[in-house]
Amino acid sequence: MTRDAPKIRLFVEGALAPGASVALNRDQAHYLSNVMRLAPGAEASLFNGKDGEWRARLVSAGRRGGEMTAKERLRPQTEPPDLWLLFAPIKKARTDFIAEKAAEMGARRLCPVFTRFTNAERVNEARLRAHCIEAAEQCGHLSVPDVAPAERLDRALDRWNPARRIMFCDETLAGSGPALEGAAPGPWAILIGPEGGFAPEEASRLRALPSAHPVALGPRILRADTAAVAAMTLWQSALGDWR
Amino acid sequence: MTRDAPKIRLFVEGALAPGASVALNRDQAHYLSNVMRLAPGAEASLFNGKDGEWRARLVSAGRRGGEMTAKERLRPQTEPPDLWLLFAPIKKARTDFIAEKAAEMGARRLCPVFTRFTNAERVNEARLRAHCIEAAEQCGHLSVPDVAPAERLDRALDRWNPARRIMFCDETLAGSGPALEGAAPGPWAILIGPEGGFAPEEASRLRALPSAHPVALGPRILRADTAAVAAMTLWQSALGDWR
Repeated sequence: MTRDAPKIRLFVEGALAPGASVALNRDQAHYLSNVMRLAPGAEASLFNGKDGEWRARLVSAGRRGGEMTAKERLRPQTEPPDLWLLFAPIKKARTDFIAEKAAEMGARRLCPVFTRFTNAERVNEARLRAHCIEAAEQCGHLSVPDVAPAERLDRALDRWNPARRIMFCDETLAGSGPALEGAAPGPWAILIGPEGGFAPEEASRLRALPSAHPVALGPRILRADTAAVAAMTLWQSALGDWR
Repeated sequence: MTRDAPKIRLFVEGALAPGASVALNRDQAHYLSNVMRLAPGAEASLFNGKDGEWRARLVSAGRRGGEMTAKERLRPQTEPPDLWLLFAPIKKARTDFIAEKAAEMGARRLCPVFTRFTNAERVNEARLRAHCIEAAEQCGHLSVPDVAPAERLDRALDRWNPARRIMFCDETLAGSGPALEGAAPGPWAILIGPEGGFAPEEASRLRALPSAHPVALGPRILRADTAAVAAMTLWQSALGDWR
């Protein structure tokens, strides 16, 4: 008896196991009962980034939240490759877009970093996480990237684990730079600079890092959100799970 | 005497040559005089997709339009590789995004195609072209993609020039499919399907086309706008001008 997985998918925080009761938050309860018009007994898929994807049945959905019961596991958990995306926050819509795209492209962690030429002063990490969750729900993924607290790039580099290589998108290489072929697999981070590029001292420090791997993204200038998708594409093709 | 190129860049329709008078449309005249507060005599860069980039001087800017005079050529014209992007129109914001990204990634032509599972019924080609122009202006490009009139995919394939290969992003290959290495250079088109994927008869027809080259974009489902950027990245890296 193989039935299709339910089309509605929700990311939940609770553990998923046979018969497990899973709490829905207010937004999820509202979505299921008022937007999708599900009645108790109806099915949806649940995932939590740890226990795979589960068919679950709606028990109740009200103003303050709801409850579902996990029934059967539809897919085992899989992990995307160990890739982080470090990016300098830009305008709100484009920053939201980067969060969404990090989830779609299978980054494990999203790290907002303030560089010298970053104009944004604050980052709403919860908002970024919500965009990641929505993308993972809609695209059928089993994991959602963590969103790290925003910090200054120089501080992030001060305590950088040298075992995590950094794919550093260097605009000054403009189409002539080294590519990713031949680079070693393992934990990596992609670093995307702000619209004004990196400050000279930032670029020098990055180039001098043993773990940094400068990469050129073609001869045309790309906006930061485009550069993020392009860099994740190159990484997933060369070192990730696109092979 | 090398001065920096003016930061303000505008795409114009008129020919650019030493001393040429170039007409500005209403929006451009408004932007220069009211938004950027340029006075007559101030400089901006102009490009038209044919004659390279030119330093030009503002002659006049009023309610109905304006005029500039081309002074000196700053960069010769270059052409991006011969890549078209065929895409099935989706929601307005994501369609606008695809137009912007096609310009950033150096596509020469943008072709909206209606597939069987395309929900959109109309496409505003002028709006797409405006997004392409804005991206080219802001990113320092010298060319703007043409926007072809929207048409049905089957009609586009009926009169397809077989010399133009089609990189067809086939969701059913899911990470296991052939990559682009070894593919021949020359004129290409990337075809991105709608959110519901291609209909079975569309997919069969595409797979049977001698000019079609199926490509997988990893094991995760991508939204159409993400798939467009990822596919253009793979193509530019393997066959375009990112090398």
